[in-house]
Amino acid sequence: MQDKLKKLKALVAEAHELGRVAAVLDWDQQVNMPHAAAGARACQTSIVSRLAHEKFTSAEIGELLEECAAENSSLEPDSDDACLLKVLKRDYERQCKVPSEYVAEFSHTASAAHVEWEKAKNSSDFKLFEPSLKKIFDLRRQYSGFFAPYDHIYDPLLNEFEPGMKTAAVLEVFEKVRPQQVELIKAISERPAPDCKCLQDHFVPHAQWELSVNAAAAMGYDFSRGRLDKAVHPFTTTFSLNDVRITTAVSPETLAALHSTMHEAGHAIYEQNISQSLEYTPLATGASLAIHESQSRMWENIVGRSRAFLRFFYPEIQKMFPQLKTVPMETFYRAINKVSPGFIRVEADEATYNMHVMLRLELEIAIIEGRLAVADLPSAWNEKMRDYLGITPPNDGLGCLQDVHWSAGLVGYFPTYALGNMISAQIWECVNNDVPDLEQQIERGEFEGLRGWLKEKLHRHGSKFEPCDLIKRVTGSEINPEPYLNYLRSKYSEIYGL
Amino acid sequence: MQDKLKKLKALVAEAHELGRVAAVLDWDQQVNMPHAAAGARACQTSIVSRLAHEKFTSAEIGELLEECAAENSSLEPDSDDACLLKVLKRDYERQCKVPSEYVAEFSHTASAAHVEWEKAKNSSDFKLFEPSLKKIFDLRRQYSGFFAPYDHIYDPLLNEFEPGMKTAAVLEVFEKVRPQQVELIKAISERPAPDCKCLQDHFVPHAQWELSVNAAAAMGYDFSRGRLDKAVHPFTTTFSLNDVRITTAVSPETLAALHSTMHEAGHAIYEQNISQSLEYTPLATGASLAIHESQSRMWENIVGRSRAFLRFFYPEIQKMFPQLKTVPMETFYRAINKVSPGFIRVEADEATYNMHVMLRLELEIAIIEGRLAVADLPSAWNEKMRDYLGITPPNDGLGCLQDVHWSAGLVGYFPTYALGNMISAQIWECVNNDVPDLEQQIERGEFEGLRGWLKEKLHRHGSKFEPCDLIKRVTGSEINPEPYLNYLRSKYSEIYGL
Repeated sequence: MQDKLKKLKALVAEAHELGRVAAVLDWDQQVNMPHAAAGARACQTSIVSRLAHEKFTSAEIGELLEECAAENSSLEPDSDDACLLKVLKRDYERQCKVPSEYVAEFSHTASAAHVEWEKAKNSSDFKLFEPSLKKIFDLRRQYSGFFAPYDHIYDPLLNEFEPGMKTAAVLEVFEKVRPQQVELIKAISERPAPDCKCLQDHFVPHAQWELSVNAAAAMGYDFSRGRLDKAVHPFTTTFSLNDVRITTAVSPETLAALHSTMHEAGHAIYEQNISQSLEYTPLATGASLAIHESQSRMWENIVGRSRAFLRFFYPEIQKMFPQLKTVPMETFYRAINKVSPGFIRVEADEATYNMHVMLRLELEIAIIEGRLAVADLPSAWNEKMRDYLGITPPNDGLGCLQDVHWSAGLVGYFPTYALGNMISAQIWECVNNDVPDLEQQIERGEFEGLRGWLKEKLHRHGSKFEPCDLIKRVTGSEINPEPYLNYLRSKYSEIYGL
Repeated sequence: MQDKLKKLKALVAEAHELGRVAAVLDWDQQVNMPHAAAGARACQTSIVSRLAHEKFTSAEIGELLEECAAENSSLEPDSDDACLLKVLKRDYERQCKVPSEYVAEFSHTASAAHVEWEKAKNSSDFKLFEPSLKKIFDLRRQYSGFFAPYDHIYDPLLNEFEPGMKTAAVLEVFEKVRPQQVELIKAISERPAPDCKCLQDHFVPHAQWELSVNAAAAMGYDFSRGRLDKAVHPFTTTFSLNDVRITTAVSPETLAALHSTMHEAGHAIYEQNISQSLEYTPLATGASLAIHESQSRMWENIVGRSRAFLRFFYPEIQKMFPQLKTVPMETFYRAINKVSPGFIRVEADEATYNMHVMLRLELEIAIIEGRLAVADLPSAWNEKMRDYLGITPPNDGLGCLQDVHWSAGLVGYFPTYALGNMISAQIWECVNNDVPDLEQQIERGEFEGLRGWLKEKLHRHGSKFEPCDLIKRVTGSEINPEPYLNYLRSKYSEIYGL
């Protein structure tokens, strides 16, 4: 058994590290690479990704997995090795179910679709993207077919990002959230808006950069095992547990880099605190996108947009931006927490964010189920925007063309953003129970209490456990939207005097 | 034939691009990576390098090569395809002659030797490095054995860097050079040294950086198809013909970054101007290290340390460093061209540089031939330093331990530096014949004449031709040390009034 396991691990490590090499190529492309090299880089990335896939789905790994599975009864069920075998079996079977011709066609279609999407978005002309998008959804429907029978045709798509999660469970949670969140947004909209003049200013880029570095360092992002760089679309990427890099975008018209960096540092702190014993295996990463998002959005919003954090950090912000010297902290706090229904998801505040996600999820499911034609997407989108946020996009560029995801073939991804919000509040309640002076610690700029709790309960496990199991281990309950709804209601009632 | 060639090219492209992926990993390690990630990166690099080697030495490539060779009589001998088949055959046979167990042992030995070398260098204790170095040379001797019969046991080692070059030819050239260069150095040493106070100053790093960028841009390094970064040991690396990156080291105690950047930009301009039709093949790189060095040292020294260049660029240097405002150009010119025998090769001036190289070559050959024991290397080194430069290193850290090359297993590499110098002067004579107002163009900061000539005659060919053949095509003659000796004599006679 030990010999076979060792051999299996060596083969898996090779495939896994090739995946990380692909991540290096991608990071370099987004951070450093001259545009002129896009063709060669696409070729390099595709070779490495294909080899990673070939290595992982090799017959040898399949045989070793079967042999190990037959002999693994001696392993502790929660041990690294037992979890590894379980996750490998799941991933191996999933990857083997998808024919390689499909993988090639899908990857080719997504590449071409991305180009069409850019054109369509730039000219706000959905018709340009419609044929590609139809093909993408057709292929995604076909993908689900490889996993039949299923409870719901959307399950296999969702499971690419949330292993083991059921569409029915997600819909149930969202059903609970939607009416309450719509009601909250309506109540807020009837109250006077806070004064946001302090955010409509020029914010020197190098000061924003320094502020971002200081915030990430204060949170406990370990710069000796990572680095911060600039990228057009901020992201976090892991080359090894000792090299987890984050990026940020700095633009002088907004102060957004600060919270965007805190978001990415939240992702990175998760990865940096995974147990080193899981290195070189697929367990050496976060458990799922939703769990990951629970960490990034907790740091960005629950921590980063709180009064406690500002008591610690607002003086630093004022030091960097002298124009804020005369702005009271309370004014700044209310300004960065302003609720304002808008067209663009990535710019949405905490109160409206989930609505953007639910809209997308409902449309994705309707298209995959065949209830909605891709051609009717723009009108369906706009109708839901009116229902949920009371606004209508003036064009499809600000509507159904705004996100890159579908052009990249990512269907099933959006719900993880909203699930992450809900999980973040569930976890936050638990941390507060266990660390009663958490708020005071944050006011003093002390984050070891929070980080230590997260590491012990969540981070160190990497992806040993499926997300639903992990949430139960961490919080003692299933995914539950109540803590998030309570968090929103309590925060905004106070700010808006509801 | 065309189908087979197409198939062959696709397979070769895969191996070649994997090599470039390994280059990305290495660049990232030297420029960006946190030290903590060294272990995982070593694993990633080794996987990619091994796969590149496996792919290139596959039986399928061997068979296709044979089939294409049998049918290639219809190809123009100088066509891209004919040259590709020739080079592939040569490289394939070379790589297949070396057993993979040897490759693994050698790579492992070199890794370990590097660690021992660092320790030995830091404590100037040769004994610490001696066992590793002995093993390295034993393995290199064994390597030559795979290529027997040979004219000289050093040929296979030299040919790793200079395909087709003969040790006898190199020695013949060096025999001519050595006495004349020793004599020149002696004559210079008897003359008063120029005033170098202007270089003993503090040079603000960010001004040096800007100066380096401006110099590279003026030379015609295309920043839209590359980039400049900082690295401890400056180097140039190619990820594609549209992504050729250079690095420089900036230290406030010297102005060295300028000429170091010009050196790397010289390498990079060569690669950037290779014909795009050679992309994705092993021809898409410089013909050899010596040819490469002829380009880097031409830009660094023949151009960069000339009066013509300073007439154009010294005002820019003065603008960046106000302390030089009162220093006449002539004083600066003489200071950057000071001849001073020293212990360290990488700091050597143009007059003494080749002596450092010849010393290393002679010692390498003596050890490989078994005439010199590794244990006797320090004393042999010091003796030659006395003979050639009239100085004795006070310790081995400043003597035989100074270079990283041997610890990395690079034996046969050093002569390429001196050959590059000689070729640079041969080429320079030809450019001057064809572009009579070259000096005036340089004075005006116009480099298109030089660059255009180099591109047309040399750069675009990539490694289509073997170095000796290429030199003949470019200059009309064999490697010939006279132009370089003439260049040195004429330059230093004038400066030192010989």
